[in-house]
Amino acid sequence: MHKLVLLRHGESTWNLENRFTGWTDVPLTATGVAQAQAAGRLLKAEGYDFDVAYTSVLSRAIWTLWHCLDGLERTWLPIRHDWRLNERHYGGLQGLNKTETAQKYGDDQVLVWRRSYDVPPPALEAGDPRSERGDRRYDGVDVPLTECLKDTVARVIPYWNDSIAPAIRSGQRVLIAAHGNSLRALIKHLDGISDGDIVGLNIPNGVPLVYELDADLKPIKSYYLGDAEAIAAAAAAVANQGKK
Amino acid sequence: MHKLVLLRHGESTWNLENRFTGWTDVPLTATGVAQAQAAGRLLKAEGYDFDVAYTSVLSRAIWTLWHCLDGLERTWLPIRHDWRLNERHYGGLQGLNKTETAQKYGDDQVLVWRRSYDVPPPALEAGDPRSERGDRRYDGVDVPLTECLKDTVARVIPYWNDSIAPAIRSGQRVLIAAHGNSLRALIKHLDGISDGDIVGLNIPNGVPLVYELDADLKPIKSYYLGDAEAIAAAAAAVANQGKK
Repeated sequence: MHKLVLLRHGESTWNLENRFTGWTDVPLTATGVAQAQAAGRLLKAEGYDFDVAYTSVLSRAIWTLWHCLDGLERTWLPIRHDWRLNERHYGGLQGLNKTETAQKYGDDQVLVWRRSYDVPPPALEAGDPRSERGDRRYDGVDVPLTECLKDTVARVIPYWNDSIAPAIRSGQRVLIAAHGNSLRALIKHLDGISDGDIVGLNIPNGVPLVYELDADLKPIKSYYLGDAEAIAAAAAAVANQGKK
Repeated sequence: MHKLVLLRHGESTWNLENRFTGWTDVPLTATGVAQAQAAGRLLKAEGYDFDVAYTSVLSRAIWTLWHCLDGLERTWLPIRHDWRLNERHYGGLQGLNKTETAQKYGDDQVLVWRRSYDVPPPALEAGDPRSERGDRRYDGVDVPLTECLKDTVARVIPYWNDSIAPAIRSGQRVLIAAHGNSLRALIKHLDGISDGDIVGLNIPNGVPLVYELDADLKPIKSYYLGDAEAIAAAAAAVANQGKK
């Protein structure tokens, strides 16, 4: 039996400002730092340990991992970065305030963009200064101009299959610090959740989510660590973002 | 021509408390964090960029690297950790106050332990709770009970030859965040400094040291980045540690 731990990054400045973030590289807030440190200390107190950690190339996930590893007293663990663990690209909505966008387009349209499986938000135009094209962290990557969750799944799962799953099968204890939608993509795959249901799954920031996996990496069970009430409140807060 | 940047970790709590640290895993002070962030911002302002970073398995060097990479806006760079970049092991002196040790044994004896090339401090006893034996970050490593600088050189240089030098030769731009004595060991090798002279070289905390290397990795020149007066004062502060 294997244990895999997933961790959504702590609160970022744009979570706090209620803006669509996507691939925009915004920092954690002081709350986000505290969440990440607490996640690491909680994992340590519960007896968890790891051999390798995976994260995206976005600072809010990387800093979450760093603070979590510090709380775990495992700052020296190897870390693998990959763009395929990035948040879903939010296209032309990146940087926009969620409430203002809802006021302009209506709750329903915003909910489609946020929560439909295969309808992407409007694409960034090629020359938009918000585009990540030309950023050297994406050298060799066909940087998207927008993504629906289906697109995110299509890049997360190959990375899981090619890199993370083999590490787990070889006996390594894996921690993944990533984003709401890259973790949704992975959970959809692990739990076999339908296209329609996955969009309703809300993952709280900074709370370790444990998957117990069998030898075929099929989930036996999964659960959040920590105080149940606080976790539910954090998930509800995520669900309510972007309402008028 | 290659550029290599060396960075001694920022101020640690035991630098501040004037205690012998060695392999003891103590954190940075707020000043140390600020030094590391400033080093990253300075490197960025001066146009430096990197492809890979190397550090030890001790948190003060790792956190220095993390904050430096943040200042550089390169949090996503690959990082290689290796125990062979650790500080010199300080044996039975680890944890002792430098001034008290000087009062007890005399300045001359402490200076021998701190600054002779081949006389190690008294060894930790095998069962000493301060020993790092059993710490899983050192699985497979023959953990020393004390080291002289010669011993540190004997582990740093093979790592340089086997891992870091090939990366530089292949065209990668390398940043190394390490410790006073592991950096002394490397500088001794690069600059061909004698056993007698290397012990007098004092490297300030948190100041980027640039080496310009030719195709054979021989130094063309080397220099610290930043304000010359502040660098000299920081180096003098290191030289004066452990005096009565």
